[in-house]
Amino acid sequence: MSQDRFSGVLAPVVTPFKTDHSPDSERFVEHCRWIVSQGASLAVFGTNSEANSLSVNEKMQLLDNLIAAGIDPKKLMPGTGSCAITDSIVLTKKAVQSGCTGVLMLPPFYYKGVSDEGLFDFYSSVIEEVDDPNLNIYLYHIPPISQIPLSLTLIENLAQKYPNNIAGIKDSSGDWNQTQAFNDLEIENFSVFCGSESFLLQNMQAGGAGCISATANVNPAAIFKLYERWQDADAEQSQEELNKIRSIFQSYPMIPALKAATAFYRNDDQWLRVRPPLTQLTSKQYSDLKSKLSTAQFEMPDI
Amino acid sequence: MSQDRFSGVLAPVVTPFKTDHSPDSERFVEHCRWIVSQGASLAVFGTNSEANSLSVNEKMQLLDNLIAAGIDPKKLMPGTGSCAITDSIVLTKKAVQSGCTGVLMLPPFYYKGVSDEGLFDFYSSVIEEVDDPNLNIYLYHIPPISQIPLSLTLIENLAQKYPNNIAGIKDSSGDWNQTQAFNDLEIENFSVFCGSESFLLQNMQAGGAGCISATANVNPAAIFKLYERWQDADAEQSQEELNKIRSIFQSYPMIPALKAATAFYRNDDQWLRVRPPLTQLTSKQYSDLKSKLSTAQFEMPDI
Repeated sequence: MSQDRFSGVLAPVVTPFKTDHSPDSERFVEHCRWIVSQGASLAVFGTNSEANSLSVNEKMQLLDNLIAAGIDPKKLMPGTGSCAITDSIVLTKKAVQSGCTGVLMLPPFYYKGVSDEGLFDFYSSVIEEVDDPNLNIYLYHIPPISQIPLSLTLIENLAQKYPNNIAGIKDSSGDWNQTQAFNDLEIENFSVFCGSESFLLQNMQAGGAGCISATANVNPAAIFKLYERWQDADAEQSQEELNKIRSIFQSYPMIPALKAATAFYRNDDQWLRVRPPLTQLTSKQYSDLKSKLSTAQFEMPDI
Repeated sequence: MSQDRFSGVLAPVVTPFKTDHSPDSERFVEHCRWIVSQGASLAVFGTNSEANSLSVNEKMQLLDNLIAAGIDPKKLMPGTGSCAITDSIVLTKKAVQSGCTGVLMLPPFYYKGVSDEGLFDFYSSVIEEVDDPNLNIYLYHIPPISQIPLSLTLIENLAQKYPNNIAGIKDSSGDWNQTQAFNDLEIENFSVFCGSESFLLQNMQAGGAGCISATANVNPAAIFKLYERWQDADAEQSQEELNKIRSIFQSYPMIPALKAATAFYRNDDQWLRVRPPLTQLTSKQYSDLKSKLSTAQFEMPDI
C-alpha cells in the first residue's frame, strides 16, 4: 500500500444536529477529535453520518469547520457520491483541494438496474472533471441500502483506466464471500475495507486494509487494537469481544442507537437528534440499550 | 377539485443536455412550449427528467429560465422531493414563490425500510418550513424506483394534519389495485394521477384526476384527448391506441427512448444525451424504435 493511502479503522462519523435540525459543527468537531484520539480515522459523510440527508453546502461547511478546527485532513475520507454527478464533482473537488487523503464514493442510487457502462461513465466523469493526481477514490459497495451493487468487472475496468485514482473499496454487503472476492481482485494497491468490524480479523487475514464501521463511532479503540494486533495469539478472542458489542448495537436501528450511546456517555441529550426520515430510539429502546451496554461493561473512554 | 389544483395530463419533461452535459435550457423551454401547445401540463424534474441527476442549483436555474421564457407557472408541477430535507425545502419554497400550482414530492429515498413516522416527519417539516397557503403537494408513490412506498395511513395522517397542502398523489406503482385504493381514500379534494396513460381511462372512471406519464413527452395530444373525452363511446378504443404507442416505448429503457424519439422527430441529435448512470439507446435500439414508430404511423405533430 502506498504511503498516501488509507489503512486502519475509520468511523463513518455520526452527525449531530442542533434544536433547529441544522448540523452542529461544534459537537461534530469534538466527536471527530475523540475518534482520532482513539486511533481511528474519519469517514465523515457516510451512511451512518446521514450524509444523504445533508445538502451539498451543509457538507462543505462541516468539512471547512473540521479543518479550521485543526482536524488533520490526512485523517479524512469524506463521502462524496451523490445521485447527481454535478454534486459528486463539487464535493470530490472540495475534498481533494482540502487535502483529504481519500473520498468514499457511492454510486448514483436513484435509478435501479443501471448498467456497468452507466456506472463507469459516472465514476469516469467525476475522475476526469476533478482531474487531480491526489484523488484517491474508495468505491462504496452497499447494495442493501444503495440497491446498486458494484460488479468486479466494473471495478477492474475503472482500476485499469484510472490506476492512480481507484484506491480501494468499502464492502458493506454483509457477505464475507463478497469481501473475499474484492480481496482477490488483481489490482495493485487496492485497499479493501470491510463495512463491519465483525469481519475485521478475516479481512486482515485475507490481505485487507481494515474496516470502516458504524460502531467505530463508539468503540474505536478496541477495534483499532484488533487492527493493530490481528496477528497476535489472542486475536480471535478480541474479535469475539468486538462482536459482542457490535451485536448489541445491531439489535436496534443503528444510527439512532449510535447517537443514543453517544448522548448517554457524553451526558448530552443533544446527541439524540436525527433528521427525518430517521427517528430516534423510543424511550424503551434507549433504556434497553443502556442496560445492555452496562451489563457488557461497555464504556466510551476519555470523553 | 378546487380551481387552484391540477387535473389533466402532465409530462415529466425530459431534460436535454449540452455537449458539456450541462442542462440545455433553450431546448428545454422549446420542448415545454410544445407540450403545453398539445394540451398537457409540465411535471418538470420528475423521474423521467433525470431530476435526481441534477443539482438543486441546476433545477432552480431551469425553473427560472422556463418562467422567464414565458411558460405559465400555473402549468408547472416541479419535482421537489430529495433525500436531504434541506434540499426539499429550498426547492419547494422556490416552486411556490415562482407561482407553480403544485409540486410533486418524492419521499427521501436513500435509507430503506423507514417508518411512516419518519416519512411523516419529513413531509411535515417541509410543509411547516415552507409555510405557504399556496403550497399544493402531490405525493409521489413510485416504489419500483424509490423503494419507499407511501402507505394509506401515512397519506391519511398527512391530509388530516395539512388538508390545505396535501393535494393529491401520483401513483407509479404500476398496480391498478393501488391506484384504486388511492382513489378510495376519503380525503376531500385529493387528486389521484396514474403514472402511466395505460391506466388513464380506468383512473378517470374511478374518479381520478388524470395522469402524469413519461410518454406525455412524445404523445401528449392523444393522451389529453382521452382525458377530455373519457366518457365518449370510443374511449376504450382510444385507450387501446394509447396502449399501442406506450408499449413500443416500454420495450426500451424509457428515458433514452423518449429522448431518441424526440431527437428523431425534431431532427436534432443533441436530444440523445443522458446523464450517467443512464446510457443512450444503442444504434440498433434506436433504429428499431424508429422502425416500430413508423410502422405504427406515430408522429410528434407541430414540432
